[in-house]
Order: sequence, then structure tokens, then C-alpha cells
Amino acid sequence: MTSTPTQPSVKYGRPVTTDGVPDIYAGATVTPWTPPDPGIDNLGISSIDTFAVPGVGEYTVAFDGYVRVVRSEPTSRQWSDAEVYTNLIEMKMVGSCPELGTITVRLNPDCLSTGQIRTPFDPYAGEGPSAKACRMAVGAVFSMPKLGMKLINKEPIILTIDDVRQIPPAGAPGKGQIYRMLPLHDIENPDAEPVAYVTSLRFTMGGYLSAEQMAAR
Amino acid sequence: MTSTPTQPSVKYGRPVTTDGVPDIYAGATVTPWTPPDPGIDNLGISSIDTFAVPGVGEYTVAFDGYVRVVRSEPTSRQWSDAEVYTNLIEMKMVGSCPELGTITVRLNPDCLSTGQIRTPFDPYAGEGPSAKACRMAVGAVFSMPKLGMKLINKEPIILTIDDVRQIPPAGAPGKGQIYRMLPLHDIENPDAEPVAYVTSLRFTMGGYLSAEQMAAR
Repeated sequence: MTSTPTQPSVKYGRPVTTDGVPDIYAGATVTPWTPPDPGIDNLGISSIDTFAVPGVGEYTVAFDGYVRVVRSEPTSRQWSDAEVYTNLIEMKMVGSCPELGTITVRLNPDCLSTGQIRTPFDPYAGEGPSAKACRMAVGAVFSMPKLGMKLINKEPIILTIDDVRQIPPAGAPGKGQIYRMLPLHDIENPDAEPVAYVTSLRFTMGGYLSAEQMAAR
Repeated sequence: MTSTPTQPSVKYGRPVTTDGVPDIYAGATVTPWTPPDPGIDNLGISSIDTFAVPGVGEYTVAFDGYVRVVRSEPTSRQWSDAEVYTNLIEMKMVGSCPELGTITVRLNPDCLSTGQIRTPFDPYAGEGPSAKACRMAVGAVFSMPKLGMKLINKEPIILTIDDVRQIPPAGAPGKGQIYRMLPLHDIENPDAEPVAYVTSLRFTMGGYLSAEQMAAR
């Protein structure tokens, strides 16, 4: 597991402290409709991302890995009123395709990836009466050793999960809110034109992993 | 007109130089399907934004104002191949509603608001065969003197225009790609919880303005 060593220069939202917050692993109980105490959730994650490389092609890659998410004290013990703030403090996802080779996705240490869970202002038909909306703004590094490149996003990737009935929303499907294209830049030349684009991202939050499972991923 | 005095700490995309780039005002000719020389477009803009203030209410405000957008040299003189990079270098929009009072929206000088125009990877049915997609990532300051607050977005507001057949896409309708809610923070306390949210944003690019019209807005 790799932690983020430097201070981020970009914060996409609210910082959440990790001081004194316990790690939570496989075996923990999650109670629906109940704001939990602060914790660092160690969760599996999988994702299907499509990358477009101008003039070359479009490639869809299946990723698998883990995240560590620190959750704040909820603003209320009442589910309907509670807001919970989150920071994505660690991520590792690995996928591959023949053309791009193996791709490893980690957090960009220059960005604080932040999120929150709250009651939406526009409840959907079909969501539970008190279902919440989860969103996270993420800065990532896509390492592509076959191409000899590390790519970063300079606009955050907005990951969303709807119809959240428990915290964490383990097992829930989510979506990257990408409108047509999200530019990716060469980390060595971030002010130059984009090298590639993410054109689609769909993910699924996994359940709690054990410390051993985290280390093995 | 106010320019951005400080160096931005956050760049949402590619910087575009303004050195030697002429301002373009009302009376300029725009040729469809033709990548233009670099320019600084002085354009009208209007927008209908909805703000949600937790526990208080949701308010829809009509804004009117102007933008100044610098465009890069196109990457090709061939429309179908051309990419054009843009920076939003100035913005002023004013709107009001009884509850929130007068709201003035300007650029956040701490962010470089960036965009691009390129051929999308997912051409829509109904778009012209060579229509392009325009996108801009914006950091703004919403001044609300009645509430004694200035609010900022820490995730960029993604403004998009589809079916672009000329540059600039004057007169075209566009949308803020906001998924359910975009948090707004107090500029004096940006690490605290959001004060309000933008829940919807629809805008229309106006045409070129004269220097006199710019000064009067």
C-alpha cells in the first residue's frame, strides 16, 4: 500500500482528518439507514473504463483493485439529516488490454480527492424515500508502462453512486460523470495538449477487504 | 473589466497565451466549418442557474453578462482535424432574486479556467457530420452581498456546447454538466462544509459585443 507523501496543491472539496480514525476491514457490520462513526473503509472496487487516443483508437479496459476512504463524523445521528464527508486517501486499480498494456491507476498526490454523501435535492423516482447520493471528485495517475507514460486528469473525475441506503455503499454500482470526454495529460508535460481521453467510466464498489486482501492487490 | 491579477494555483487544462492575440468585437465575421486565427472573443452570455441552500430553499436566477475567451492557433487548418484550446480570461454575469439579492459571478483568479473544441469521439445522431464539441472547466466566484458571502466552486463547473459548426459558437445553447449538485464553499472558509449547491445550469452564448457594450455590462 502506498500513501500520498506530499501536500496536495489542489483540493476538490472538504478535507477529512484521518487522526485517530480506525481502519475498517472485512467482517465489519454495516447497518442500513444509520450514519456510522468515522472510519477508514478498506474496500474492493472494479471499473470498466474506455480510453480514446486521438488518431489511434478507443480501448475499453476492465480494472480491479481497492480503495481506502476516510469518512467524517456524520453531521447528524438522524439518517435523513446526516451529511458525511469523505476523502479518497488511497487507490490502486490494475487493468490491461493488448494495445495499451497493463494500466495501474493510483491517486494523484498533488490532488486531494474529496467527496460527500448527502440527501439529494432532486430525489429520483425509484430511489428509497431517504436514499442518499454519494459523489467523489478524484485526481488520478494512469501509469501505462507499455507506452512509457503516466497520464493525469486535470479536471476531477466525478464518481457518483445513487440510491445509497447504507454507509459505505459497498456493492453499489456507480458511474463516472464524464460528458463525452475527459482529457488526460502527460504528467511530464501537463500544459501540453491532452494525450488521451476517458470517454466512459462505470464502476462497482466492492465490499470490505481484509488487511491481507489489501496487501495482495 | 477586471483581469485576473494573480497566478492561478489550479489549472483545469491547457494554458493558452494572450500574447499578441487580438481582441475581437462586434462586427467580426465568423465563417462556419473554418478554424479561425487565434483571437480573444468578447461575447455576451446569459445563464439560468438554480442554487440549493440546505435547509433554506432552492432558487433559480437568470444571469446576463459577458465573457472574454482566448483561443489558440488551431492544430489544423482542416476543420475536421482541428483542435482549438481556450481559456476563459474574464467573465461577469449579474442576476438577482428576492431571497438571495443580486449575485455577481466572476472568474476565480486562483483557477485557470480552460477548455477546448474538438471532434467528439461519440458523434450524436442529429449533429452535423463534422460538428464539434466545446467544453470549458470553470472556477468562479459568486458574490452575494445581501448574504455577505462570496462562494466558490472547488470542483470546476463543466460548461458544454454540442453541435458546434463555427468558432466561436456564438448563439449556441449550452449546459453545465452538473450531476445532482455541485458544492459551493465560502471563499473565507473553503475547507468547511459547502454553504450552497448549484443544482442546474443552462446557458446561451451570445454574439460578439462592442467594446462599449462590454464596458457597459
